[in-house]
This record gives sequence, C-alpha cells and structure tokens, in this order.
Amino acid sequence: MKLSDGVEWALHVTTLVAFVPADQAVPAARLAEYHGVPAAYLAKHLQALSRAGILEAVPGPHGGYRLARPAAEVTVLDVVEAIDGTESAFVCTEIRQRGPAAGPPSDYRVPCGIHRVMNRADRAWRDSLRAVTIAEIAEGVVATSPAHRIEAGARWMEEVLR
Amino acid sequence: MKLSDGVEWALHVTTLVAFVPADQAVPAARLAEYHGVPAAYLAKHLQALSRAGILEAVPGPHGGYRLARPAAEVTVLDVVEAIDGTESAFVCTEIRQRGPAAGPPSDYRVPCGIHRVMNRADRAWRDSLRAVTIAEIAEGVVATSPAHRIEAGARWMEEVLR
Repeated sequence: MKLSDGVEWALHVTTLVAFVPADQAVPAARLAEYHGVPAAYLAKHLQALSRAGILEAVPGPHGGYRLARPAAEVTVLDVVEAIDGTESAFVCTEIRQRGPAAGPPSDYRVPCGIHRVMNRADRAWRDSLRAVTIAEIAEGVVATSPAHRIEAGARWMEEVLR
Repeated sequence: MKLSDGVEWALHVTTLVAFVPADQAVPAARLAEYHGVPAAYLAKHLQALSRAGILEAVPGPHGGYRLARPAAEVTVLDVVEAIDGTESAFVCTEIRQRGPAAGPPSDYRVPCGIHRVMNRADRAWRDSLRAVTIAEIAEGVVATSPAHRIEAGARWMEEVLR
C-alpha cells in the first residue's frame, strides 16, 4: 500500500503557500523551484489542489497560486484526498459470494465483517488526518526550524513576491 | 492508495481456516476452490501467511493448512501485514531539504511535521486493525449469516476433511 508521490509534494506546497500574504500569489514555476521538482510534474498536482478548492489560481502578470481559503480551514485530509482520492485502500470484491458453498445474493444482506473492519480502519486513518490543519503544520515548521532557516525561506518568498 | 488484492483473499482464507478442527488441515487446492480463486494465485499468499506464523503447512496425504496459533491470537493486522508489509503508506523523501532555500542536514534534526502527522494516521489505521481478531471475524460470520449458509459451509468442510 502506497500513497501516490504527489501527496508529499502537495502537502509541502500547500504549507508553503500558507505563508503567502492573502493579496498575493506565487507563480507555479517558483513553487516547483522551491521544492526542487520539475514544473511539469507539479502542474497536475496544482490543478488537483485547485479543483478541490484548496488553492486558487490568480491570472495575470503577478499571478500564480494562493490558498483559496484560510489555512486553518484546510485539513491534511483535504490535501491528501485532493491528490489520492477518497476511496478506501481496501476494495471488497465480495469473495464470500464465490465458490461451491456460496448462495444467492439475498443470503448476503449483512455487509461482510471483513469489509466493515477494513472500513473502520480507513475511517480512523482519515479522522487522524482530518484532525490537523495546514495552519498547524505551518506553525510547526516555524516552531521547530532554526531561525536562519526561517529567514532563508522568508527572503526567498520576499524575492518571489517582489 | 490501494492494498494489494491478496489482503482480501488472505483475510477470507484465514477466517475459513479458523473453522478447521485443531488436529486437521485443508489442502491448498480446496482453499482455492472454496473462494473461487486459482490455486496458483493462492499459493504465494498461503506461503506468506505461513512465513508470518499465521498458518501452518501440514505435510502428508491428509496434509494442508491450519492455523499456527489460536484464532483469538491472530489479529486482522497480522494478516494484513503478512501480505502487504509493515511500511507506512506515506513515504517521506525529505522534500524540505531540497530547493534554493534549503540548508545543510544539521538544520533538519527535528522530524518533518508532515511526516509525523502521516505516521500518526498510519498508527491509527494499524491500531484499528490490531483491535480485531480472526476469532471475532469468524464469530461475526456465524452470527450474521442465514442458518442454511452456515450449514452449506459446514457440509463443504466435512466433505473436505473426510
């Protein structure tokens, strides 16, 4: 089981964009540069984040991307689902209805117990990711990084938004 | 994100084997037949379950597979990890250490906040699966299936073990 690679990138870029002042935007090419990823790779993830209402594309010469709503209203789950979807990692193919001892569909009205246990775990995973916002992730970056790293990031942002 | 297909099959076969009396065993071919899967497909999953100490291969003419320990001591997580491994679905590639504003490795002694949040969700998922045993799944099958389905399963088992 593996989340798509885009999830890691999307979480980092959304956290970075949380530091952009509300009336400004960062061009896609600079977002790619900041994390050392190819611009083409990032384009489709930025589009997915925009479709999900997490980022907003601002057109024009000073255009780019910014948050579509406050970082405190974007959960980690929102970003993960924008990239990886909302489907459970477990797919039930109703194995119990196969084979020589199986019966007609009417014998299987109660959902499969294995399916229910797997779904409950999926909900626990999503609940855990829903409990943390991008604002909290961004605060954590500031709280745990050496001062000179924060300054380097701020200088980069200042130059990009000039 | 998707669990490997073998997980569903492994959970069903382990639950079925939980109904086998302790001194008997079911041939691999019959386990395949019961769930309508090809024997070749099942072989590698039975081997993985054996390697994990969940099933035990009994040699000889009346040989086959049985549980290696009581069903109450096999959790759903044990079976899932036997097939799908113990690695988190999220792989952190330390994106934060890349790009023009990044610093030397010594600036990143505190684990990445995104990585920690994703790991916490992975633990919540595994804790949820660890809380249910195969014995409980098997009891659930009996409790929620129509009587004639239980009888059909019992007849199949009786014929296989004859």
